[in-house]
This record gives sequence, structure tokens and C-alpha cells, in this order.
Amino acid sequence: MAFNSIILRLELDHRHVHFGNVASAISNVGGDITSIDVIRPGQDTSVRDITIQVSDQVEAQVVESLRQLPGVQVVNVSDRTFLAHLGGKISIYPKLPVKNRDDLSRVYTPGVARVCTAIHESPEKAYSLTVKRNTVAVVTDGTAVLGLGDIGPAAAAPVMEGKAMLFKQLADVDAFPICLDTKDTEEIIRIVKAISPIFGGINLEDISSPRCFEIEQRLSAELDIPIFHDDQHGTAVVVIAGLINALMVVGKQMDRIRVVVNGIGAAGVSICKMLLAAGVTRLVPVDREGAIIRGGKYSHPMWQWLAEQPQVEDKSGKLKDVIQDADVFIGVSRGGVLSGEDVSRMAENRIVFAMANPDPEIRPEEALPLVRVFATGRSDYPNQINNVLVFPGIFRGALDCRARAINESMKLAAARAIAAVVSDSERNEHYIIPSLFNEQVVSGVRKAVIEAAIATGQSRRIPPDF
Amino acid sequence: MAFNSIILRLELDHRHVHFGNVASAISNVGGDITSIDVIRPGQDTSVRDITIQVSDQVEAQVVESLRQLPGVQVVNVSDRTFLAHLGGKISIYPKLPVKNRDDLSRVYTPGVARVCTAIHESPEKAYSLTVKRNTVAVVTDGTAVLGLGDIGPAAAAPVMEGKAMLFKQLADVDAFPICLDTKDTEEIIRIVKAISPIFGGINLEDISSPRCFEIEQRLSAELDIPIFHDDQHGTAVVVIAGLINALMVVGKQMDRIRVVVNGIGAAGVSICKMLLAAGVTRLVPVDREGAIIRGGKYSHPMWQWLAEQPQVEDKSGKLKDVIQDADVFIGVSRGGVLSGEDVSRMAENRIVFAMANPDPEIRPEEALPLVRVFATGRSDYPNQINNVLVFPGIFRGALDCRARAINESMKLAAARAIAAVVSDSERNEHYIIPSLFNEQVVSGVRKAVIEAAIATGQSRRIPPDF
Repeated sequence: MAFNSIILRLELDHRHVHFGNVASAISNVGGDITSIDVIRPGQDTSVRDITIQVSDQVEAQVVESLRQLPGVQVVNVSDRTFLAHLGGKISIYPKLPVKNRDDLSRVYTPGVARVCTAIHESPEKAYSLTVKRNTVAVVTDGTAVLGLGDIGPAAAAPVMEGKAMLFKQLADVDAFPICLDTKDTEEIIRIVKAISPIFGGINLEDISSPRCFEIEQRLSAELDIPIFHDDQHGTAVVVIAGLINALMVVGKQMDRIRVVVNGIGAAGVSICKMLLAAGVTRLVPVDREGAIIRGGKYSHPMWQWLAEQPQVEDKSGKLKDVIQDADVFIGVSRGGVLSGEDVSRMAENRIVFAMANPDPEIRPEEALPLVRVFATGRSDYPNQINNVLVFPGIFRGALDCRARAINESMKLAAARAIAAVVSDSERNEHYIIPSLFNEQVVSGVRKAVIEAAIATGQSRRIPPDF
Repeated sequence: MAFNSIILRLELDHRHVHFGNVASAISNVGGDITSIDVIRPGQDTSVRDITIQVSDQVEAQVVESLRQLPGVQVVNVSDRTFLAHLGGKISIYPKLPVKNRDDLSRVYTPGVARVCTAIHESPEKAYSLTVKRNTVAVVTDGTAVLGLGDIGPAAAAPVMEGKAMLFKQLADVDAFPICLDTKDTEEIIRIVKAISPIFGGINLEDISSPRCFEIEQRLSAELDIPIFHDDQHGTAVVVIAGLINALMVVGKQMDRIRVVVNGIGAAGVSICKMLLAAGVTRLVPVDREGAIIRGGKYSHPMWQWLAEQPQVEDKSGKLKDVIQDADVFIGVSRGGVLSGEDVSRMAENRIVFAMANPDPEIRPEEALPLVRVFATGRSDYPNQINNVLVFPGIFRGALDCRARAINESMKLAAARAIAAVVSDSERNEHYIIPSLFNEQVVSGVRKAVIEAAIATGQSRRIPPDF
């Protein structure tokens, strides 16, 4: 249960209401008054800001009960989350002050002309003389935002700004939100290509499936900077990291396990690909129609790709059928699709990653007694699969070596680096994933990604510390 | 003559050269050594950074003479301008720290979902809950950069970053460079519309004529945020500001003067429009073919518009003909098109603004003895017409009142506000334009722009200080 701190601005008409009535109304529905500020005192009416601790569930009730109290006017409702968003969450600063004519002539006309000319003559100098070397676009069309779906580019902006904050705070990457007012695949591709000169990388975000595959593939082919659709690969990298440690906990090998992946959308496809790259030999991708089988024919191009992989099983069936004897279940689907009975038919020492949001594929309370290792996408249980572990370090590494792309090898290296932050002595059923705020994560991922980029010929520069 | 501070990294082979030889070689061609840092000492060879004050003219000679000295290897040449550009000139910061789980859940998932939903339900909340209210895109296609011409989007980036620095430093506006890898008018319009949701305004920059007119007009018609092509209007606003004060100095009235504008491109068209808005009744626009005359037929749509204005004269002729008896000459054309003889045939108490870059329409030394008031685009003479006086305050005002557009009335108000910063007691032939760093400029322009926006129905919000 999540608690918010909300601030209500109330205008009280003292002829009809006393503050005691207000306090009672708030307490009666479960609100807890933590402070009161008188904004405008007065004989007949007064304005006060009342700060209240309240659970998500009853917040609306508190406000409603006050609205119905005679003599009370609810002028405004703010909460700390909304207050944190006022005016947006990022800001753009000059790296040097421009205080006099001399500064101006260096960073702007006339001095800047020589810098422009240098880049015009040697385009690779854009990496040293502009923000390109440290700047990433966070690009969305607002069609698949969190659990909210297609809410459009303006409403998606707070997520992109939040991501830009994390890029800077965790990995010193400058990231700017590009929120596109179009859903047309070709137009999105054209736009991202057109705006790319100033960026060293593109983080695609919250673009719905299957357009996200085409957009990422085409941009990767047509641009020489890294393109990374976080919803696909961010989740996949953390899943593989968690799985590496979970297998060590239960004493199983990546090339021996049988893995069921449920939900073959953006994240599911990338998880399947990474599982194969990591050495899994027995894979069962499952979507609403049931298992995607080797040799099957599918209109979805990524499903068809899976059907052509030798490691994919050829037995058809629904989730309830194929779950039998699975060592690992990875869900990126919907709440409640997995029952306790299903889980109990898995192999011994079973591992379940139930990452549907906000409700996991199986309730943690039901799953925990039945499995060795359990992970979710939620922060209120151990082992949170959170892609905040991935994108800062991956882009830090890619930018530092001026990578042309982020390939499977770099992603796998990132997953192994995340897993390695958890030491042998720390690793256990409830600790397979490091904390988001563990500083070793970004530095470890960065190093691994750069090494993999150099090894696979994707780097254009060897960083000084290599 | 402009001086640069350059830093040379030299590797010296002591068997062939002594430092005394290096110092002499630098002094002989006019360089002045200001500091020496030994980077790597050594028996046979050493590496040193030599800082030298040098004029633009001989910088290349200094480097060349060292390259030809036996035993000297020039490892690197940096100057302070290039050093100021290393890694780019702007950075993006979170406004709040994200240090723990509690912070994260407020600015990112899960808390951010409520903020997204609020904007989805009430789109105008984008102004309060995202960066939109303070953020401007500086959009270019790199086709008309400074005096350099079509150098492309990547090479144009340092100008756009410089502009972003000035936006922040002078007016606390967050500005981000959008450098477009396309010259197609329709594509540029589509892209700017598509990326607009996160921006509160669009500053078009260094886009070549005549495409710039179509792009600005279409975007103004199709978006509900201000579109401002600085090359057109920035210059025009300062010209009008300077002219207001110049006319006071010489004791003439705006509605009585005869004005010749030479160079009817992006800036020239906007200057003509603003002169008419400011009350000029006798206008002679001149381009390479000669005067654009009332009743003439022109394929260029803006020239045709001018030919339909009653204040435009109907006498044809070359610049040398129509300059006769002009009170004011405004040049945004090419160096050297105006002779001293031309100027001497103007009316008494003549005013000449010669703004061609880098060489004015007439050399200052030649013009100054012949005119009452003289202005250029250069910083090394009095009365610099510089659009840095305009864009920070105009956008500050437009953003603060959430303007839908920046119209003629708002631009004219900005010009009058800039003029008014020069007080009656300060105003004279050599001081008609305030300094770029005079803090009254931005606050004065802001206030005037907001008043004009409110008066003309372009504002969506009355700022608290109004």
C-alpha cells in the first residue's frame, strides 16, 4: 500500500464550519494531518494549507468528504509527486558562463565560426566540439506508456523527463526528451534520422509493438549511432542478469534448463533472443494462442524468427500444458495467468520471474512458498527486475567508446556485469539483483559494454582508461 | 584585429633544437609567449604546452614556422575558443536529486503515472507539469549559418549550442538545439510539428531564404506556440530600436522620413514590415535588380507583398539612384555596395545602418565623417545591431504568458523597450543601442512583450506580476 503526502488548500467559512469539523472529516476516512499553514487569516473566512499523509486508496475519499462539508471550499489539491513535477524535472545549463563580450565572442559569433568550419571540414569533430559525445535522445510517440497505454506524446513527457534525470544522476549522460506527435512508423524513422546529428545515441521508449521492432531495426541499419529500445532490451538484460544469479543459487546450468517465456511482445522477444545468446538450449515462447513452436508459420515476423530457431521446442500447447517440468518461468504478460497449481508442476528448484505490471502473473504470496527464486517488476518485494539498472551504464559505455550500435554481445556483457555486482557471499534466493543505487552497477556495465564493443568492432574510440 | 590565445603542444628533440630557438621562431612572426608548462620532461626529448597570444592574421604563420624548425614536432594546436567547445557547451541537469527509492518512485515509476494521467485528461497541464513552460527548440537545417552558408546540421550545432547558452544565461530559458539533416521545406514543417509537444516555443535559426518564410508562416498557422525566425525578426527588432533612438538624436519623425532598405532577404523583409508597423510612410526596398516598386509584379511572394503596400515608393532605379535624399539607409546586403559619394547625396542629418557581415555596406572609416548616426553588426564600432538583445527577452515574455504566437505588435513593443533602456541623458550619436549585458534589456523586453500579447489576445495566462 503506497502512501502519499498531499497538500490541500482550503477556504473555510467560519460561519458554517470550524476547523475541528475539517480535522474530523479527514481522520474519519483515514487521513493523518501532519501540518497546517494559515495562508490568509480572516474574520469570516480563512485560507489554510493542510498537509495530510494518506494511502492511495483513500486519497479521493478525503478530498470528497471535505468537498461535501458545508462552509469548506477545496481550492487546490497538491501532492508531493505533483509538486516534484511543477515546471518539469530537467533544466539546460551552459557549461561556461557568458558574462562579457570576450566570453560571447568565443562561444557565439564571431569565434564560433571557426569551430563550425572545423566540423564542416572534419565531421568526426562533432564528437569533440559539440554535445554529441554525451547526449542521448529519449524518443517516444506515447503509444505504450507504463501501464497506461496510448496516452500521447504530451502526457508521456513526465516519464521521458524522469528518464533524463536518471541518465544524468546515475551515469552523467545528458538526455533530452523527444515526444513525437505521430504514430506513423515511416515518419518516426524519418524524424529520428533527421534530428540525429546532435545525438550520440537514441533511446527509444514506450513505443507500442510491433511498430517498435521495425523502427529500431531500420534506425539501427540506417544510422551509425546506437539505437536502443529500452522496453525490449532493458528488461531483457536485467532478466538475464537475474537468471545468471538465480541459476547459481539453485545449482543449475544455462545450457541445461528448460525455460518458458510467457508474453511474446516487445520485451518477450528480446528476452528470448538474449536467452539464446546466453546459451539456453530448450526454450518455449508462449503467447495468448499458446506455445510458438519450431517449424510453425507465423505472420508476426519475430514469432516467425523464433519458430526457425533450433533451440525452440516443437510441442504445441497452452501455458498450462507447457509449464510442466519447466525449470524457469519468465512472464512479461498479464496478472493472474499462472496458478499455484501450474507452478507446482514445474521441475524442482524452480525459478519464477513474474514481471507483469502492476499485478504479477502470480501473486507473490501464492508463489513464494512454491519456488526457490521469485522475482517481480515491483519494488515492494525482493528481486526487482528494473531496467533502471541497464540504460544508464549501457549508454555510458556506448558513448565513451563512440559505439556504432549496441549489439547482442554488448547487451549480454551488460547482463553479466550486473549479475557480477552481487558477490558469491551475498548471493541468495532473495538477492539476485543489485540495488538500483549501487554505484558498481553503472561502472561495471560501462566497462563490460566497452570491452564487448571493442571486441565486436563496434567502437570508434578506445577510452583513455582502457 | 582579433587576438586569440592558442596553446601549442610541442615535442622537442634536444639534440636538434633548444627552447631558445622555439621562442625566437614564435616572436619573429609576431607571437607573444604567455606561459609554458612542461608536460613530460626528458633527457633527449620533452613535451611542453606553450600558450601564445597571437592575432588571427599570423596564427597560421606561428604554427607553420614551428613545423619547419628541425627537432620540433607540433603535437597539437588548441586555442581558447576550441577549448571552450570541448565536449559541447550545454548540459542537462535534473532539478531534483534522485538519491533513493522514495525519490525514484516520485519522479519515475510508479508515481509518475498519476502525473501522466493528469496531463492526458487535461492537456493544458503540460504547461505546469512538464518542461514545456520554459523550454524552446532552437531549430536549424544548417543552410545559412553566420557568414558560412550551407555547412549542414552537424557543423551548425556550435551556433545553436551558443544560442542555448545565451537563452539560459540572459533569460533563464531552457533551449535545446534541433539540427535537422534535411532541407526539404515540407519535411522540416512536419518534423517541427511532430516534436513540438515538449516545447513552449520554436526559435528558427539560420535557415536559408526563401524557405524560411514558408516554414515560419506554416508553422505559425499550424501550431499554437510561438514561432520566431531569429534571422528575420531578431535583426529587425534591434534595427527599429536603434532607429527610434537615432531619430531622436537627429530630431526627425518616423512618419516623415524616407527610408532605403538594401537587401530584401530574410532580415530585409522583416525590417520593411516592422518599419511599416512603426509608422514609416516612405519606404524604398532595394535588391540587386534595384528598387522594388509599388504596383510592380514579382515572383518572390514577399516582394509582391511589398509592391502592394501604399507606403512603398513607385519610382524605379538602382541603389545609387534612389539613395538621393534618403534620410535613412538600412543595409542587410553585401560589403562595399555603398560609396561615400552615395552617402553624401542623402538628406541632411542622415542615418546609416550598414549591417552586412563581416564587411559592412560601407567602411566605417569612410562613412563616419559623412553621417550623423552610424551603426553596424560589428562589435568593434559603436552602435552594434545584435539580435542577442532580442531573442532572450522576447521568449521570456512569450513563455511567461504562454503566448500562442509572437506577432508584429509584440515585436514592435520589444523594439520600443530596447530603445527605452537608453535614457534621454545617455542617448547620443554613439549610443543608440544598449549593451548586450545590460540587465534592463531582458526585463524590459519581457514586460513589453507580455503587455502586447495580452492586448492582442495572444496570451493564455496573466503572469503573477501583471
